[in-house]
Amino acid sequence: MDSVRDLAQRLPAGMRDVLPDEMGELRALSDALRRTFVEAGYGEVWTPALEFEEVLRAGDPHAAGASYKLFDEHGRVLALRSDMTIPIARLAATRLAGQTPPLRLCYFAHAYRAGPVRADHPHEFLQAGIELLGLDAPEGEAEVIALTLAALRCAGLERHRVGVGDATLMPSLLRTLGIDDELRKRVLDALRRRDLVAVERLAGGIPDRDAGELLVRAANARGGPEVLAPIAELVPESVRRLARLHELLAASGDAERVILDLGLRREFAYYTGIVFEIYDPAVGFALGGGGRYDELVSRFGRQLSGCGVALDVQRVHVAQAAEEGWTGAAREVGGTPRGGTRGAADRQFSAQGPLP
Amino acid sequence: MDSVRDLAQRLPAGMRDVLPDEMGELRALSDALRRTFVEAGYGEVWTPALEFEEVLRAGDPHAAGASYKLFDEHGRVLALRSDMTIPIARLAATRLAGQTPPLRLCYFAHAYRAGPVRADHPHEFLQAGIELLGLDAPEGEAEVIALTLAALRCAGLERHRVGVGDATLMPSLLRTLGIDDELRKRVLDALRRRDLVAVERLAGGIPDRDAGELLVRAANARGGPEVLAPIAELVPESVRRLARLHELLAASGDAERVILDLGLRREFAYYTGIVFEIYDPAVGFALGGGGRYDELVSRFGRQLSGCGVALDVQRVHVAQAAEEGWTGAAREVGGTPRGGTRGAADRQFSAQGPLP
Repeated sequence: MDSVRDLAQRLPAGMRDVLPDEMGELRALSDALRRTFVEAGYGEVWTPALEFEEVLRAGDPHAAGASYKLFDEHGRVLALRSDMTIPIARLAATRLAGQTPPLRLCYFAHAYRAGPVRADHPHEFLQAGIELLGLDAPEGEAEVIALTLAALRCAGLERHRVGVGDATLMPSLLRTLGIDDELRKRVLDALRRRDLVAVERLAGGIPDRDAGELLVRAANARGGPEVLAPIAELVPESVRRLARLHELLAASGDAERVILDLGLRREFAYYTGIVFEIYDPAVGFALGGGGRYDELVSRFGRQLSGCGVALDVQRVHVAQAAEEGWTGAAREVGGTPRGGTRGAADRQFSAQGPLP
Repeated sequence: MDSVRDLAQRLPAGMRDVLPDEMGELRALSDALRRTFVEAGYGEVWTPALEFEEVLRAGDPHAAGASYKLFDEHGRVLALRSDMTIPIARLAATRLAGQTPPLRLCYFAHAYRAGPVRADHPHEFLQAGIELLGLDAPEGEAEVIALTLAALRCAGLERHRVGVGDATLMPSLLRTLGIDDELRKRVLDALRRRDLVAVERLAGGIPDRDAGELLVRAANARGGPEVLAPIAELVPESVRRLARLHELLAASGDAERVILDLGLRREFAYYTGIVFEIYDPAVGFALGGGGRYDELVSRFGRQLSGCGVALDVQRVHVAQAAEEGWTGAAREVGGTPRGGTRGAADRQFSAQGPLP
């Protein structure tokens, strides 16, 4: 056994303390994001850190599988929330059942993931996000993405981008190409891990070489609406969705921030349509992401479409630092460099991989 | 088994969702408290929700006993923090070991307590607090109490009071009166539960009737410095401490808010001197409390005195509502009544007992 003094020098795996300089900056960042969300009509909610594990599991088996679990006094399994989307879907179906959609909700709360420790996988992380319930595609996605981009601008970011894909695109494409179930599952797993080398290897095993090449090209396709043309007849529904959303975002002046990303997959399986991730070229990891989940709220007893985003506040904080590093000289001339600990946070998180 | 839809209608015992109107008010209240703390030089910190259970236990066996527990992947027991004082003591002894005292830290974080469900015992509660490490008695207590009173004034309270006692007073008095260990333990337990009827019953069993009467009178003594006289020679150290602190608080203009409370005991056992609780006559429960813990940080490897307070933010919120109910008519004439959900919160928490 370690002594308490030795133990106190360490923290449970994947956990960290936040000291005043960094905490002050995280508060300022959260306040800037909250202001934008609330001014756009999103009301902040809080849900308990502990949920019934069965509730999380109904929302997404993967979310429940990755959670910290414990027993309550009746032997029921509780779990620390692994995101806020499932608790808010539960809330929309229960205490908010009488409210007429659309519902606009936001949150600032920590989420928890257990499991093996990796440098890119903190076990406690602060999320800032919004959920827009009852406004269907594509207007819902357009509002959520535009507001996310605006909130990050308010937080001082200037170079952020959004990668936009569709959760049904790759499964449909693989089916249309006649790929068998086993291989399809492996390709989708590889995409979820962003392992494009594995996708290429798996595609090499497809007897129809044209199909294999098309798959690899689609998995790697990133760009403007022109990337949709080669697959327009194979997966018409996904392509129409992406094209229409791109039009809406272009109309709101965000076209230059949008990158269509046909191979994009998210960790959680509750997404039913558009999915997206936020990037900043100054750092090598996603700042957050989200998408449409039209079948999630119904698992708790209410038919209600939904769409939302979650930002990892500490990653956004690191991106602020990195952007300042790029443009710091110019800002210091202006006399208002932002000080503090972002550099330290940058070093600590520089090994981070893409967000789930 | 309940269906997921039935389960989703309930929450784990002692947990609740917070909807936008109430959440907006809790944010405004937290911001007002934070502003006061930060302007007074208290830097905000964050510690993980999960600690090693052995660390909590070293801080206070009762804190660990009341906590939610689970196993990490190495079979080590983790616990959800049951307060922020123990994690901050750990932090002061480890990552902040190089900082020269005094350290002034504040926090806004949820704490968790498992156990049987009672209306007055939520299992998740938001605490706002400060810790002042390395400034000894009585100046440390005076600063912490004065700042607490000021923060509550900034949050709009006008009628709040602080009850001040001493953790060593009753144990010393019982020893001086020659009460045996077994009975002493039962009296102290009854005081911790605020069960003065039980104290009287236990005192009735003391063979020396004068000693029994003195004990009952001391346990019930509340008021100004005049309450100290009858026990001044029996427990001189506690009386000197209380008298000196009262002088300091009177000098800073807070005398009319201070009530000496000789029978005051707190739930956690880490207190070594002055203890206090915050009250508001508009509501029937403590809004928070704190005290001096000069032996806590050393359990994690650093000799450092300490003193702090934790406010229950939702209880302070209810007190705001109750004070407005008392003075609402006058305020509405002024044209700025504060609206929102405090009435609802008031109903929900009206059965609350004293804070630990």
